Amino acid sequence: MTFEHPSFGRITDDRVFIFDTTLRDGEQSPGFSMNLEEKLRMAAALADLGVDVIEAGFPVASKGDFQSVAEIARVVKGSVVCALARSGGKNDIQAAGDAIRHAERGRIHNFISTSPLHMKYKLRMEPETVLEIITTGNKAARNLTNDVEWSAEDGSRTEPDFLCRCVEAAIKAGATTINIPDTVGYATPEDMERIFSMLKERVPGADQVIFSAHNHNDLGLGVANTLACLRGGARQIECTINGIGERAGNAALEEIVMAIRTRHDQYPYTNRIETTKLLKLSKMLSTTTGFDVQPNKAIVGRNAFAHESGIHQDGVLKNAATYEIMTPESVGWSKTSLVLGKHSGRAAFRDKLAALGYTISDEKMNEAFQRFKDLADSKKVVYDEDIIALVDDEVRDHARIRFLSLDVSSGSQRAAEATLVLEIDGEAVETTANGNGPVDAAFNAIRSAFPHDARLALFSVGAVTEGTDAQARTTVRLEEDGKMVDGQGADADTVVSAVRSYIHALNKLLVKRTRSEPESLLAE
Amino acid sequence: MTFEHPSFGRITDDRVFIFDTTLRDGEQSPGFSMNLEEKLRMAAALADLGVDVIEAGFPVASKGDFQSVAEIARVVKGSVVCALARSGGKNDIQAAGDAIRHAERGRIHNFISTSPLHMKYKLRMEPETVLEIITTGNKAARNLTNDVEWSAEDGSRTEPDFLCRCVEAAIKAGATTINIPDTVGYATPEDMERIFSMLKERVPGADQVIFSAHNHNDLGLGVANTLACLRGGARQIECTINGIGERAGNAALEEIVMAIRTRHDQYPYTNRIETTKLLKLSKMLSTTTGFDVQPNKAIVGRNAFAHESGIHQDGVLKNAATYEIMTPESVGWSKTSLVLGKHSGRAAFRDKLAALGYTISDEKMNEAFQRFKDLADSKKVVYDEDIIALVDDEVRDHARIRFLSLDVSSGSQRAAEATLVLEIDGEAVETTANGNGPVDAAFNAIRSAFPHDARLALFSVGAVTEGTDAQARTTVRLEEDGKMVDGQGADADTVVSAVRSYIHALNKLLVKRTRSEPESLLAE
Repeated sequence: MTFEHPSFGRITDDRVFIFDTTLRDGEQSPGFSMNLEEKLRMAAALADLGVDVIEAGFPVASKGDFQSVAEIARVVKGSVVCALARSGGKNDIQAAGDAIRHAERGRIHNFISTSPLHMKYKLRMEPETVLEIITTGNKAARNLTNDVEWSAEDGSRTEPDFLCRCVEAAIKAGATTINIPDTVGYATPEDMERIFSMLKERVPGADQVIFSAHNHNDLGLGVANTLACLRGGARQIECTINGIGERAGNAALEEIVMAIRTRHDQYPYTNRIETTKLLKLSKMLSTTTGFDVQPNKAIVGRNAFAHESGIHQDGVLKNAATYEIMTPESVGWSKTSLVLGKHSGRAAFRDKLAALGYTISDEKMNEAFQRFKDLADSKKVVYDEDIIALVDDEVRDHARIRFLSLDVSSGSQRAAEATLVLEIDGEAVETTANGNGPVDAAFNAIRSAFPHDARLALFSVGAVTEGTDAQARTTVRLEEDGKMVDGQGADADTVVSAVRSYIHALNKLLVKRTRSEPESLLAE
Repeated sequence: MTFEHPSFGRITDDRVFIFDTTLRDGEQSPGFSMNLEEKLRMAAALADLGVDVIEAGFPVASKGDFQSVAEIARVVKGSVVCALARSGGKNDIQAAGDAIRHAERGRIHNFISTSPLHMKYKLRMEPETVLEIITTGNKAARNLTNDVEWSAEDGSRTEPDFLCRCVEAAIKAGATTINIPDTVGYATPEDMERIFSMLKERVPGADQVIFSAHNHNDLGLGVANTLACLRGGARQIECTINGIGERAGNAALEEIVMAIRTRHDQYPYTNRIETTKLLKLSKMLSTTTGFDVQPNKAIVGRNAFAHESGIHQDGVLKNAATYEIMTPESVGWSKTSLVLGKHSGRAAFRDKLAALGYTISDEKMNEAFQRFKDLADSKKVVYDEDIIALVDDEVRDHARIRFLSLDVSSGSQRAAEATLVLEIDGEAVETTANGNGPVDAAFNAIRSAFPHDARLALFSVGAVTEGTDAQARTTVRLEEDGKMVDGQGADADTVVSAVRSYIHALNKLLVKRTRSEPESLLAE
């Protein structure tokens, strides 16, 4: 089956279109709002990733929303830019049309609820009224753009015969994409496959539109439901970076794309996503919103390609395929990270030493391994620097910058002031600097003692749950010419810990400047 | 079909056993190690949750592991306590047997790889050798306990005929549970259903053992694969709290249990889990390991039952079922949280005001709503305190404690000292206190100015990504007599922000003391 689509031209049946709604469904979840500049940056990166459609916002919702959609439509090239509108909203469709007016290719996505529950309690409308609104809404949208999508909100809980009538009405009124969302995340894969198969079979004109999946993750089934929709005949996937979105979020773009790629034998579909950019998008979104993904988030989590247990590490060292079904490089990680802990075996320890540049005698190795096991029993994660300290007390001589002392005054009534003593290339250097808060003052003192251009990309403090006198663990990420390093520090004093992290990162960056090979983000 | 199981007695075909491996597969992932005390606390809570089997560790891996398993076996009642062992490891099975010796009901779980890739590269063994080890391993285990589980590591990638032979050998040697893990997270739901159906049909003795599912989430399919295993005939589910585990983690216990419960029409199985304790377990694990779940984590994430967009909020207010497929109460949240943001409509704003105890005139309401929309355009999330400030400038009079000023000195060379001025019940109180770092000193000053017994349960600083001069947002959680309150603060100075958070939490706690109704964790 092939047909002509207003935005995509002639399309074949194996082509799956990726519709990203990070900036709409994702952005409307608590804590994930973005401002105009942030949305523009994300939209440009999504276009660069190869997303087919970017849902940029809901123009009638607020002035800010309208402005972001309009600006993304004006600036972003290569992807269809889509604006959301209620099928029956008074100004919705006009606002959406206005917002996408300057898009290279623009889409209006209108929706109305079709389930008995939503029609009765939310809309307070009779089914016949909903059908009329579907017709008028899609006609109005089609007058403003050739690329019109219609969604049956709460579609997965809609009565089948009525759903067929709604879809038929939308197609007749000019919709070119038909989306059946599982709005509340209630469906099973079996449900979703059945719904799409039914629509493809029963609705007149179904072969001249693209069917679309939009699955929420309330029961953890977002990705599986999406794959089931494809089996049922859907060819557009609505999803978000990191799976953000209302409540438990939407199906995650990176998981769906990698599932299709990894299991191409069962999901023989093509798309335009450049998978090596997936990690970058995930990190950009986390940085923008301030919410990190869990360490165990599939594809993009810090642990997704990390192996701790001795058994698994041993396998990975012998043949990566024993525990990895896709390469970390294929999604943008530069190499598998072996994080050491108490389950790590001798082989992993030796490999880590080699990666850190140490080759030691068997005798010294045995001794170091024993000390490592003792350390690992008392420490949750053994970092590279702990390992270095284990095998080489002289390692500090490799660091150009060392922390000597810090003194800080701050408070609500005055600018913070930090007096810092560093040893730089063997010489003690004392500086004093002010700042907006104690951490800012201390970092300014570092910059004044050792001038550099690296940008502070992230400063984070691990949550402390054992009382505030416990060690705080902080992370500082510095960026310079596309090189990114993370430094860690720990101290009972958060500000001292922050300074240690910064200096750790800075020393790494200095080493990195002298090396030519790219290093792993993950290995930092 | 019914049969007699050594630990569970006569069992019927609709019974699904929940096998939790948070303390083994979960604990062995980077950053999630727990010490003995932490494991004991988690194990007791898991037993209380109603988990059938607790996999407590891998005794041969380290002295610490052995000790934790032995201690959990000795102390925890009501759940089978299980110890992991390699089928062919020299001391593995004996160590596992020793560790569970004092358990009320103890299980040895032995495993060996059966896939071509693992046998060749990891084990470097011929298939016939693997078969022999399966026999000797299970016999050895069966000599030590009647409850023996065997796992075909990388089972989902094992050649079907060989897998049947392996399972048959394990059953003949005494295994009473047969686990077919998708070790690398490669399988699709179709694969898993097919594998279990095949084993149930082909392997002699298959009707006298429990088949078990163990799915990883590398492609986001962990939960769906687990449900597919049940369709195929599996009746034990291996899973973890929050879905922690190697790489992208295991299928999440809370998601599987709630999927079965919510879609009982399609998954007609019973289990012993008390779902109202799910949130408690999730939070306990996060607190123990220091890793929070994502806000959009299904079931237990902060946003899982939170609705921001005006459309959804409106629906929830009219009828919760329009957007909620299970009640927040059923998993331990006390009520749906409506977090306000720029997409929030008038109805949600009015409802929030009512929840905060405000009833205002229509005129004042219109004015406040307009100011709220302006605020929401510039602020990512609008917190309750922002709303209160919007509608009632006098609100501060309700707070017994107010922050006036703070002055802090700290550094690497001396104890931190904080001088704090608070207004308590209208009077200025100045205190000075020392501490281990500036935050600790400032919190000590609060405790000295206003003595109280509440325990500091959590202190966290939101990651800052816009430079250290940006506002830091901090959270302080206080606990007193089972009541828990979170206070938030924001300031360019982290320490000032921390103090504001603490005082915010303390004021809430004082209000809570005077109220009798339970309040929502989520609504804090």
